[in-house]
Amino acid sequence: MENLAPNGTSNGDNGGKFDSEIEDMTGKTGSFGSMKDDSTIMKGDAGAKAKDFAEYFCSYAYLYHQKQMLTDHRRMFAYHEAIMKNSSIFEGKTVVDVGTGTGVLAVWSAKAGAKRVVAVEYTDMAKMARVIVAQNGVDAIVEVQQGSAEEMEGVEPGSVDIIVSEWMGYFLLRESMLDSLVRVREKYLKKEGGHMFPSHATMYWALIEDERERQVKEQEYQQALEDWQTFSHQTKEFYDLDMAGLTAQYEEEQKEYYLLSSSWAELRAEQVVAEPVVIRRLDLKSCTFEEIKGVPETPFKFVIPPKDNNEPVYVSGFAGWFTTDFFGNAPGIEPLPHPTTLSTAPDVGYTHWGQQVFHLVVGLELFPGDVVEGTVALVRQVENARLYHVEVAFQVRRGGVTSKLVRHKYQMP
Amino acid sequence: MENLAPNGTSNGDNGGKFDSEIEDMTGKTGSFGSMKDDSTIMKGDAGAKAKDFAEYFCSYAYLYHQKQMLTDHRRMFAYHEAIMKNSSIFEGKTVVDVGTGTGVLAVWSAKAGAKRVVAVEYTDMAKMARVIVAQNGVDAIVEVQQGSAEEMEGVEPGSVDIIVSEWMGYFLLRESMLDSLVRVREKYLKKEGGHMFPSHATMYWALIEDERERQVKEQEYQQALEDWQTFSHQTKEFYDLDMAGLTAQYEEEQKEYYLLSSSWAELRAEQVVAEPVVIRRLDLKSCTFEEIKGVPETPFKFVIPPKDNNEPVYVSGFAGWFTTDFFGNAPGIEPLPHPTTLSTAPDVGYTHWGQQVFHLVVGLELFPGDVVEGTVALVRQVENARLYHVEVAFQVRRGGVTSKLVRHKYQMP
Repeated sequence: MENLAPNGTSNGDNGGKFDSEIEDMTGKTGSFGSMKDDSTIMKGDAGAKAKDFAEYFCSYAYLYHQKQMLTDHRRMFAYHEAIMKNSSIFEGKTVVDVGTGTGVLAVWSAKAGAKRVVAVEYTDMAKMARVIVAQNGVDAIVEVQQGSAEEMEGVEPGSVDIIVSEWMGYFLLRESMLDSLVRVREKYLKKEGGHMFPSHATMYWALIEDERERQVKEQEYQQALEDWQTFSHQTKEFYDLDMAGLTAQYEEEQKEYYLLSSSWAELRAEQVVAEPVVIRRLDLKSCTFEEIKGVPETPFKFVIPPKDNNEPVYVSGFAGWFTTDFFGNAPGIEPLPHPTTLSTAPDVGYTHWGQQVFHLVVGLELFPGDVVEGTVALVRQVENARLYHVEVAFQVRRGGVTSKLVRHKYQMP
Repeated sequence: MENLAPNGTSNGDNGGKFDSEIEDMTGKTGSFGSMKDDSTIMKGDAGAKAKDFAEYFCSYAYLYHQKQMLTDHRRMFAYHEAIMKNSSIFEGKTVVDVGTGTGVLAVWSAKAGAKRVVAVEYTDMAKMARVIVAQNGVDAIVEVQQGSAEEMEGVEPGSVDIIVSEWMGYFLLRESMLDSLVRVREKYLKKEGGHMFPSHATMYWALIEDERERQVKEQEYQQALEDWQTFSHQTKEFYDLDMAGLTAQYEEEQKEYYLLSSSWAELRAEQVVAEPVVIRRLDLKSCTFEEIKGVPETPFKFVIPPKDNNEPVYVSGFAGWFTTDFFGNAPGIEPLPHPTTLSTAPDVGYTHWGQQVFHLVVGLELFPGDVVEGTVALVRQVENARLYHVEVAFQVRRGGVTSKLVRHKYQMP
C-alpha cells in the first residue's frame, strides 16, 4: 500500500526527470517537522500521507522556492521600482515586511532610507533572511523576527509607517494571506499617513480561447473513463470482483479533476477574445475582512468584437488574474512620486502567478456581436479558508435568442 | 507568493499533461477536509502550503489511488491466491481486514468461507468498500467499519482468527503502518491459532548498477548549482542584492535532494551485480514494536562474481526491497495448504512498490573478486514516525587493500 498524489502517480509511475514530475513531491528530503503525531490516523491511508506532506512543508524552508519567486522578474522589478523609486516615502520611516522570505523587500526598504525595518517570517527561511540582511549591509536597520507578524516583538501598535508585503496568491486571493496582512495593518499601521505597499489590488475576469488545452483535458478525461472500463473488466475476469458499482463515483472524481478544476496558464494577449471586466477592486489600506473573503456573485458581460469576414471565435472558457498597484493610499496621505503597477495579465508575459483558467466542459463557437453574460463568484471554502472555488453561471445571447443558463462550480486547487 | 513543491514547480512551471507532472498535486480537487485551522500559521508560507496538502489528502478518498493498487497484478494475484487457495483456513473463521480500501481482501475472505469479516478503513473509501461488498454479494458476511482498526466495534479482544492486511510501504517499513497492524494483532488476534496474512516479511539489500539514473541525478545537481550562480549574478546586477551568503545552504539543499535521497526504481534482474543479502526477517505473528521500528546497523558483504574477460562492473549504489510470505505462523498452528509469496524483487518485474535505490555520490568500477562490505541501518525519523532515513557505511576491499570508509545518510522520501 503506497500511493501518493490524487491522480498523481505514486513515485512508482515515473522515473527520470525530477523537475517536472510528481516525484518532486516525494523526492525532496530534509529534516522533518515538528507537528504533533496522531497515531490514530497513522494508517498508511490518505490521512497519513497528508500528514507526511504537512510535516514536510512545515519544517523545511526551501531555497529552491525562494529562488523561483526571486527569478520572477516582473514581480521583482515591480517591487524594486516601487520601493527604490519612492525612497522619499521610506526615508526615516518604520517599515514592516510581512512574510519576508529571504528578506529582499526588507533590504530594499532599508536601502531606500527606512529608519527601522522589521522583517517577519514564520518559517525557518528567517535564518536565511538574517544572512541576506547582514550580507547586504543593512543589519543595523533590519531586524528579522521569526514568528507571526500579528505578534511582533518591540513594535508598538499603531506605530508603523509602511507595510510592505508580497502576499498575493493565484487569482489574487488564493492562500488568503491577505487576511493576515489586514490583521497586521489593523494592529500596527498608523491610522493617519500609513502606507500599504502595494496599495491597491484589482481582479480581472475574461473570456478566452484556449482550445488546445481544453481539448487535452477532455481527451484525458475520456481516456480515464476508458481505463476504468478496462480495469473493471480485468478485475472481474482475473479476480471475480465486480467493481462496476464504483464507476459513477470514479467518473465524478475524474470529471472534477479534469474538467472542473482551474489550471495555471501563461496566456497570450490574443487568447483574450473580448474586453476583460473588473470584478473586484481593493484599497488595501481600508479593505475589510468581509471584502477579502472572496468575490460575491458579480455580473459580467462580454461582447465578441468585430472580426474580418465575420469569422467564428472559439471560446474555451474564462480566465482570472490580478494587478496590484503601488499608488499610495489617498485620501489623507501624500501621493507616491513614482506610482507603479505589478500586472499578471496575459499581455505582460510570464509571471509565476500566470492566469487561472476555467475551461468550459463544451467549447463554444461564437460570432462577432454575440454576448456572453452571467455571474462569477469566488467562494472561500468553509473547510480550508485558504482555498476557494469559483462559481460561474452564463448564457449566450445572439440577436434576440438566449441560450439556456450553464452553471459550473470549479475547484481552484 | 505562490510556491509549492520542494524543487517542484509551482503550477506555474508546467502545462500540458496531468498524469506525470507536478500539477497533479495541485490540480486535484474535491471537497476539502476538516482539519482545524490555525490562523497563526496561515501565512502563505510553507506551513500553510503543508496544511493545504494535509486537508486535501485527508478529506478525499481517491478511487484513482485505489485503482493504481488494484492494477498492481503481482500484488493482487498474491493476495488472491493466498486467500482463495487457502480457503480451508478461512472456512468458518472471523477475519479482520486492516485498511480495507475498496474492500477487496474482505470480499475474498468472505468468498473463501469466512463466517464473519470486519473490514476497517479510516478514510471515506469505507463508503466505496460498502458498495463493493454489497455488489459482490457478501454483505451478510462483511461488515465495513469506518474508523480505527485499533478500536473496532463489536469485536471482542482476542477473538479474531485471521488478520489480513496489505500494509507494506516502500522498502517494507515506510509509512509504518505495521505499527498499527501489530497493535491490532496484540489486541484482537487469538493468541493460539491466530493467522497473519501475510505471515512473514523479509527485507533485502543489494549492490546494483544503475549508472544512467545515477548520472542523470548528478547532472541535475550540477545544473542546479549552475542555475544558482546565474541567479546570484542576475540578482546582484538587476537589484543590487547580494545572495552569495546562501550559496552553501542552497548547495546542501540540492545535494540532499538530488544525491542523498533514495528513489523508486523498477530494476532489471541483471542490474543486481552481486548476491543480495537479507537484512531483516519478521514473523508477523510475533514481531515486537522494537523489531519493526527500523533496522539496526546490520553488516553486509557483497563479492563481485566472476565475469568473462575479467571485465569491470559498474556499481552505482544499493537497492532495498522486500518479500512477504503467506506461510502460516508456526509453531502451534496448522501450516497453509498453499503457501505463497509476494515478491517485489527486481527479478519479478513491476510492482507498484518497485525497489528503493540509494545511489552513490561517486560511481565505482569494480572487478570480479572485489568485496564491498559495510553496514546499513534503516532509522525511523524522530519527527515523523512514518518516515525513515537510511545510513550506509561501506568500504571496498581488493586483494589486501581496503579503501577508506564512505558514509552516506539518505533520506527515503
